[in-house]
Amino acid sequence: MALPERLSRLVSLLSRLPGVGEKTAQRFVLHMLAQDTELPRRLAEELVSIGEHLRPCERCGHIAEVTDPAEPIRCSICRDQKRDPRILCVVARIQDLLAIERSGAMRGRYFILGRLISPLEGVGPEDLPLETLRRRIAEEPIAEIVVATPPSVDGEATALFLARELGSQVRVSRIASGVPHGGDLEFADQITLGRAIEGRKEL
Amino acid sequence: MALPERLSRLVSLLSRLPGVGEKTAQRFVLHMLAQDTELPRRLAEELVSIGEHLRPCERCGHIAEVTDPAEPIRCSICRDQKRDPRILCVVARIQDLLAIERSGAMRGRYFILGRLISPLEGVGPEDLPLETLRRRIAEEPIAEIVVATPPSVDGEATALFLARELGSQVRVSRIASGVPHGGDLEFADQITLGRAIEGRKEL
Repeated sequence: MALPERLSRLVSLLSRLPGVGEKTAQRFVLHMLAQDTELPRRLAEELVSIGEHLRPCERCGHIAEVTDPAEPIRCSICRDQKRDPRILCVVARIQDLLAIERSGAMRGRYFILGRLISPLEGVGPEDLPLETLRRRIAEEPIAEIVVATPPSVDGEATALFLARELGSQVRVSRIASGVPHGGDLEFADQITLGRAIEGRKEL
Repeated sequence: MALPERLSRLVSLLSRLPGVGEKTAQRFVLHMLAQDTELPRRLAEELVSIGEHLRPCERCGHIAEVTDPAEPIRCSICRDQKRDPRILCVVARIQDLLAIERSGAMRGRYFILGRLISPLEGVGPEDLPLETLRRRIAEEPIAEIVVATPPSVDGEATALFLARELGSQVRVSRIASGVPHGGDLEFADQITLGRAIEGRKEL
């Protein structure tokens, strides 16, 4: 390779980003060296800044800004007093929380599992942060857990496990699964169509 | 958006990378915050380091490591004494140089134009670094210019312009265009097939 060693190190670090292979990483680096030469410095500043100022929210696992080091770390949603404290939406990942927030349909707060039960990937029920979740239910006036894990095998297994474990303490619900808005019935898979019919509602 | 302002700034900087939209940039950021938490710091270090240590080669425009600030900046290819000083390969971009280096077929050195003549993008012949190229031809024992601009409209226009301007000083050749290795004639476009037939060689 006719590139300095230093660049190969940067290319291999960038390849750790999701969906970025070595070719894409190399394109990023050449772009920064040839077209957008102030980008490396600005990116470096912001990367250092997120490392210094952002931490997981100690209550829900979402990303939180550290404002006062003496205070417990809380994200903007956990700090938001207008949220309904009786509803707790359980999601697998931060991305799912953000998607639900964009919908504007969740009035409550969140809890991020960080993973789903997945026999194939060797993740069992004991790997879920169940005790942390139980403690929240005990300490807060939570009346309903809305399980918003994805409608996949792992997501369903996780939802069923949570319902079984927490069902005696609190009401547990599951987000609806069916044909997506704008979706064409002709191209919907059998499981989705089956769920759409099972979950039908009276008009 | 339920994300700290700091993160939005990082997302918008990452969106400046080629082929990266806001969604992809957001996925990068969440990955660095949730899965690969040492990545931001290490990336920041390497980004600062390339800004400090890499500059364009003053002779050919390729990326060069600054070793001694008192010395002129030369890339590894320009410093390589085993290169044939009589052959100069002219390319549009660093990526093209790297692709040719991978082929192992170029014994000479390079000159990076940085752009192609492109009436559609408002780039005219006067925007090419022709004087720098002429000076190199005058100062070095260059006997042949191999024009390796892409076989596109802009690449051909640039090649023709260079041949006309430099043809009296030095021999100017053009890389061959034709059906690629492993390519299927059935799926080759008309222009490529036309060029493959025009450029046929006796066996």
